[in-house]
Amino acid sequence: MKHTVSLLLFAALVVTLGVAHIGCAPQSDVQSALDVAVDPLPSWNEGAARQSIVDFVARVTDPASDDFVPEAERIATFDNDGTLWSEQPAYFQLLFAIDRVKALAPEHPEWAKKQPFKAVLDGDMEALAAAGEHGLIEIVAATHAGMTTAEFEAVATDWIATAKHPTTDRPYTEMVYQPMIELLDYLRANGFKTFIVSGGGIEFMRPWTEEVYGIPPEQVVGSSIKTKFEIQDGQPVLMRLPEIDFIDDKDGKPVGINSHIGRRPIAAFGNSDGDLQMLQWTAAGDGPSFCLYVHHTDAEREWAYDRGSHIGRLDKGLEEARERGWTVVDMKNDWTVVYPWN
Amino acid sequence: MKHTVSLLLFAALVVTLGVAHIGCAPQSDVQSALDVAVDPLPSWNEGAARQSIVDFVARVTDPASDDFVPEAERIATFDNDGTLWSEQPAYFQLLFAIDRVKALAPEHPEWAKKQPFKAVLDGDMEALAAAGEHGLIEIVAATHAGMTTAEFEAVATDWIATAKHPTTDRPYTEMVYQPMIELLDYLRANGFKTFIVSGGGIEFMRPWTEEVYGIPPEQVVGSSIKTKFEIQDGQPVLMRLPEIDFIDDKDGKPVGINSHIGRRPIAAFGNSDGDLQMLQWTAAGDGPSFCLYVHHTDAEREWAYDRGSHIGRLDKGLEEARERGWTVVDMKNDWTVVYPWN
Repeated sequence: MKHTVSLLLFAALVVTLGVAHIGCAPQSDVQSALDVAVDPLPSWNEGAARQSIVDFVARVTDPASDDFVPEAERIATFDNDGTLWSEQPAYFQLLFAIDRVKALAPEHPEWAKKQPFKAVLDGDMEALAAAGEHGLIEIVAATHAGMTTAEFEAVATDWIATAKHPTTDRPYTEMVYQPMIELLDYLRANGFKTFIVSGGGIEFMRPWTEEVYGIPPEQVVGSSIKTKFEIQDGQPVLMRLPEIDFIDDKDGKPVGINSHIGRRPIAAFGNSDGDLQMLQWTAAGDGPSFCLYVHHTDAEREWAYDRGSHIGRLDKGLEEARERGWTVVDMKNDWTVVYPWN
Repeated sequence: MKHTVSLLLFAALVVTLGVAHIGCAPQSDVQSALDVAVDPLPSWNEGAARQSIVDFVARVTDPASDDFVPEAERIATFDNDGTLWSEQPAYFQLLFAIDRVKALAPEHPEWAKKQPFKAVLDGDMEALAAAGEHGLIEIVAATHAGMTTAEFEAVATDWIATAKHPTTDRPYTEMVYQPMIELLDYLRANGFKTFIVSGGGIEFMRPWTEEVYGIPPEQVVGSSIKTKFEIQDGQPVLMRLPEIDFIDDKDGKPVGINSHIGRRPIAAFGNSDGDLQMLQWTAAGDGPSFCLYVHHTDAEREWAYDRGSHIGRLDKGLEEARERGWTVVDMKNDWTVVYPWN
C-alpha cells in the first residue's frame, strides 16, 4: 500500500506542475481498405517490434511447430495504465478520485476546512502532498468505499462516460493506444484469451473494459478493497469497505495472475518496473513465451518518460528487457498512430 | 476460518464413525443412441426439476423472449462439494490432507509423537478432534503450504490420479454426478459460461476441473492461502504460505464471485446452507435468474442427508428454496443415475 500511495501522491503532484504537454500529431498515412483487411496491425510500422509479435504468434499457433501451444493455454496479460491507455499527467483513477471529491463536496460542507479534502477542492497540491499517505487513504475511502458495488459501478460508469482528459479534453476512453487495441484483436483472432492485470482498481476498470478493449469483467485483474455481503432492506448487497484487500502491482502481479487466472501467461505486456515481475513470471514458463515493454518515447504525440519518471518509471525493466531480448516498443518509431483519433 | 475448520473436523470424525454406506445402484435403462443425441439431459427424469432447467434455458436464449440474456451475461456458478461430486464420508480435500500426512510422515519422524499428526497416523480421530482447530490448521499448513504453487499442483495432480474413495474404491474423479456433468454441457451448449464457486481450495481443484468438468482454471473460484512471489536460484516462484487468504463459503461466495467474475450470475447451483448467499445474490439480479439446490435424498446410490448433517448441512437453504420457488433436485427421484458408472 505504502508504495502505491506514494506513486499516487507523486502523480497528483505532476498534475499541478503541469509538466506534460501534448502536441498535435500529424495524421498518419491513410491505408487503403484492402491493406487494412489483410493487415491485422495497421498502426504498427514494419520493424523488429512488430516482427517479433507476428513471429511469436505464428510459432505458437502452427500445429506443426515445436512451439505450438493449445488454444486453452494461450493466455496473454496486459498492464493497463501506460500500456493500453495513457497515464499522464496522472493515473486516470486519481483524476477520477479528485473529480469525485469535488462532486461530493456539497454533501460535505466540513471538507471546505478539512484536509486533505480542502487541498483537493482548492487545487492546492502542495497541501495535498503535505497530507501524505494518510490523506490519500482518506480520499480513497471517501470516494471508493462506503457504498455498494452496484453504486460504485454506477459512479465509475458515469464518470468514464462524461469526464474529459485535462490536457487533450478527450474522453478517457479515447486516450487508449490504437496499436494496442489492434494487438488485442490480433491475439484474440489467433485464439488467445486476453486479460488485464493492472495496479488500478478492479472495479474501476470493469465497467468499461469490455466495450473499450473487448475484455470482459471476468478477465480483469486489479487492485481491490474489501467487500462485505449484507442484507439491506431484504436485498443482498456487497458493501465496499475502506480497507485494502490486494495491491496488484510489482510482486503482486504474479500473485494476482495465479489467483484469478490459475495458469501462467505465455505473453505479457507492460510499460513500467511495476510490470517486471509479471514479465519475469511469464518468461519463466516451460514453453515459448513473449514479453513486451511499451517504451514511452514520443513527447510529441504522447509523453516521453522512463527512468526518471514517478509515474510509470521504467528502469530495471528496460535493462532486463535488453539483457533478455524482450521486445521493447519505441512508441515514436514503431507506431504510426498513438490514439484512435490521431 | 473458524467455522470452516469446524466443518472439516466434523467431517474427519464422520470418516471414523463410518456411518455411510454405498449401495449398488441398478443399471439405468439404456437409452438409444438417437435418444441421447436429441436429449441433452439423459440422466434426468422427466419432472419439475428437469422442466424448470429446460424452461429457464429456453427463456434466456430466445431472442424473442422478454427474458433474453446476451451470451456474455450467461454466467452460471456451481458449488463443487456435494453439488458436482460427493462430499461423504468427508470432504475429499480433507481425505487428501490425511493422505498427505501419511505420505510425508517418513520425512517427519517427530510426527509419530506429535499431535495432531500422531492422531492422523494412528487413525485416531478422537485425538484429532481433541487437537481442535489449531490442530487442523497445523495439518493444512503441513500439507498445503511451505512449497511452491508448481509443487503443490504436482502433488494434487498425482493424488487425484491415484487416490481411491474410501467406500467405493473408485478414483475421486468418478465420484462426480453424471446428471450435473450433462447439465454443465447443456448450459455451455446454450452459451453459458460455467464457473465453480467452492469452499474447497482453489489450487486443489484447478489441476483437474478442466478434464473432469470442462471448467478451465480461470473459471474456478475457491478458498485460498496466501502466496508470495520470490526469486529462487534465479527462477521466479510463488511460495504457498501457511496463512489463510480467503474463505469462499457462505458470505464469502458473493464476495468471491464479485472478485473473480465481476458480474452477477444468472444461474447458481448448490447443495448446502453454505451456498445460500450465492443463491440469494444470484436471485437478486435485475433480470431472470435460476437457483437450484441438489437435495441428497438417495441413501442407496449416494447418501441421504440435509438438516442434521455436519457436512453439507441443508436447513435454512431448503426452507428459503421452498418459500421462493427455487428448484430442489430430489436425487433419488430426479436422477436416473448418480455416478457415470452407475
